[in-house]
Amino acid sequence: MKLMNGKNVAKSILENIKERTSSYEKKPGLAVILANNDEASKIYVNSKEKISDSLGFKSSVYRFNKSVTQGEIISLIHELNEDSEINGILVQLPLYNHLNQEQIIELIDPKKDVDGFHPINIGKLNCGLKPYAVCCTPKGIIKLLKAYKVKLKGQSVLVIGRSNIVGKPLATLLTLEDATVTLAHSKTKDLKSLTKNADIIISATGHPKLITADMITKGTVVVDVGITRQLTGGLVGDVDFEKIKDIAGYITPVPGGVGPMTIASLMENVLELFEQQNKRQE
Amino acid sequence: MKLMNGKNVAKSILENIKERTSSYEKKPGLAVILANNDEASKIYVNSKEKISDSLGFKSSVYRFNKSVTQGEIISLIHELNEDSEINGILVQLPLYNHLNQEQIIELIDPKKDVDGFHPINIGKLNCGLKPYAVCCTPKGIIKLLKAYKVKLKGQSVLVIGRSNIVGKPLATLLTLEDATVTLAHSKTKDLKSLTKNADIIISATGHPKLITADMITKGTVVVDVGITRQLTGGLVGDVDFEKIKDIAGYITPVPGGVGPMTIASLMENVLELFEQQNKRQE
Repeated sequence: MKLMNGKNVAKSILENIKERTSSYEKKPGLAVILANNDEASKIYVNSKEKISDSLGFKSSVYRFNKSVTQGEIISLIHELNEDSEINGILVQLPLYNHLNQEQIIELIDPKKDVDGFHPINIGKLNCGLKPYAVCCTPKGIIKLLKAYKVKLKGQSVLVIGRSNIVGKPLATLLTLEDATVTLAHSKTKDLKSLTKNADIIISATGHPKLITADMITKGTVVVDVGITRQLTGGLVGDVDFEKIKDIAGYITPVPGGVGPMTIASLMENVLELFEQQNKRQE
Repeated sequence: MKLMNGKNVAKSILENIKERTSSYEKKPGLAVILANNDEASKIYVNSKEKISDSLGFKSSVYRFNKSVTQGEIISLIHELNEDSEINGILVQLPLYNHLNQEQIIELIDPKKDVDGFHPINIGKLNCGLKPYAVCCTPKGIIKLLKAYKVKLKGQSVLVIGRSNIVGKPLATLLTLEDATVTLAHSKTKDLKSLTKNADIIISATGHPKLITADMITKGTVVVDVGITRQLTGGLVGDVDFEKIKDIAGYITPVPGGVGPMTIASLMENVLELFEQQNKRQE
């Protein structure tokens, strides 16, 4: 088994970020908006805040209860857009159902869009132009594959799941890396023939054990983006890890694979936005 | 042979546009900027102007010789963005080499971006949001396939060529239609095994006869976006039409396939932008 250890790779990225950050007089500023009641989101936000502080950033979390209005979020975003101490604005998704997520994301100044979800950043990425920030999970996956020297150019990559935050931008990034990408999803027929023929499989569906041993050819690289909390409390991915780990060329564990890379990419985005903004002001 | 006759389908779309246009008091306004010395571009622009006028639009073409500066084009775009008589702005590509194409495209008001090339329109399309306009060639291809009732949902579609104006947005549109899309390009290995396994092949490379009879499985739908002028003066596509026409399920000719659909989609975009802008002013 060749494990792609996201935790280790992320650790060295974070160390590098901390060092770069300490070389600046000003501190990169991250604002996080939490407007939902989801337990997982609360845990993610606390973790982002903690890591952000440990790197020497200045983070502020805005927590809202269910009575928050669209107008209040909009005012806050306008305020944060104008605040020169804030370099990155992160809206933790999902939002309360009564809020208009699309409108809120589009109001974030694209220069401060640390998640890379603003349509103009997605569009720039898709056109091969430089977005202000690249979506964290796709960016983290590419970094992890490169850390293990997995070849992308000319390889057949199957991405499963067509979400706006993982599958679609990941397909875009892989195409820019000269991979031949197939984007599969819930309406795809005969997934097994696609997995059998892929050099690299990246699954981001949230369906536990969607990818079973009979679907994998010896040596295939398998990246598991899925993360589902079981009733027993444990976390599982999309991939039947135990049965596949000795067939795959490389494989990511869950947890400890893509998750830490996403966080590291987020922190890197905060620092990069800070650097871009301070360069522009010179 | 089952031919997908783009000329006929485009004709009925244009008739519909003409009728809708005649129901309005105001005329949709299209501005075209031609800043290159390319013979093909001149022909395209003349043809767009002629068709536009025949539909009852008001078109103005701005022709520049090589001495034009970036600043002059920028001023013109600012002027056209403000002009309430102009609903769509088209910059004929490529531009003279000394001009910065990216900057010019991004300055077009996305609400008037009739080609759908502005990063924010590309981004909205990629996120499954409604762009102001959808790129003309991909939009035309989807319309042509639908006119011939070619099923897209769950089908394997191979798109060859990853340009910003055809391949990439086409892959996006097909994914939104629930197709399973593979995006191939110059770095793709073993193109033949991909073409053999596809339900639908859409080639947009500009390499004459890239797609030969031995690459096609009986019944495959073949769409040819390529268009290359031969030394003898004739136009050829990416597909070896004569040898494939009786193997393919459906096939588009070159010329008379995708080309007229692109023009029809452009004209539809002009009218749709006009309708959007006049609705907003109410």
